[in-house]
Amino acid sequence: MDPTICAACKYLRRKCPQDCILAPYFPSSNPQRFACVHKIFGASNVTKMLQQVPGHLRAEAAECISYEATARVQDPVYGCVGIITQLQQQITQIHSEIMKIKGEMVAHRSAHPQHLPSPQPQGEPSWFSSTHRQEQDNFQSDKHLSGNF
Amino acid sequence: MDPTICAACKYLRRKCPQDCILAPYFPSSNPQRFACVHKIFGASNVTKMLQQVPGHLRAEAAECISYEATARVQDPVYGCVGIITQLQQQITQIHSEIMKIKGEMVAHRSAHPQHLPSPQPQGEPSWFSSTHRQEQDNFQSDKHLSGNF
Repeated sequence: MDPTICAACKYLRRKCPQDCILAPYFPSSNPQRFACVHKIFGASNVTKMLQQVPGHLRAEAAECISYEATARVQDPVYGCVGIITQLQQQITQIHSEIMKIKGEMVAHRSAHPQHLPSPQPQGEPSWFSSTHRQEQDNFQSDKHLSGNF
Repeated sequence: MDPTICAACKYLRRKCPQDCILAPYFPSSNPQRFACVHKIFGASNVTKMLQQVPGHLRAEAAECISYEATARVQDPVYGCVGIITQLQQQITQIHSEIMKIKGEMVAHRSAHPQHLPSPQPQGEPSWFSSTHRQEQDNFQSDKHLSGNF
């Protein structure tokens, strides 16, 4: 293994320039990482994606790109969206549970006002934020996906 | 707009064959959808990704690919992973809140055993499933991403 050539340039059988934009994020010690990203996005697209973000954010962008590629290799139908769906389902489930508990607390408090602290105001709790609703709206607006979410 | 040629073949300026694998999912009525997917994944990779999933799952795969591409265009650093992070943070926040409420209920039940129904068994509630923990483990195992989760 030649440490002076990054995994991307090695995979693409090309000379690795000193200013190779992929080198810091795809070291030769982890060839599988680039192979996965290359399979899903292609080297050219990954290069463009990294070029368009500021230098100090490229490491995080490369991690996220790698995460997305891995998710799609592992789940060729849903990829990252499968993880998003699972998390949204969990939140919906928790929402039902927490509203039930709060309902019980409100009912109990009415009967025994001195026993429990005040619950949150009626309606959605603070954590069920507009962000979550927005994400759900984005999903639900898609007619093909709506059956799954 | 020629309805006999799909958005993909039109974008790529090629003849749209009768058995074009992209045509059912990238109609000429929505050229932006293919443009976005093409920018992030490339036509060749999208074609390969659709070819490797069974026919009855291709529509969903195309939707998810399109969703991922849109997320990355909108957020060039984090893409879909940004949405996953937000959802995980929400779940962690709710987990803290629900455990606090359940703690209050347990304390109250000890003092007033006749007033409230039995809480869930101690430990993680049912919705804080092994799936969620697995996803968090996957994230946490990534040294670059771990700072954000």
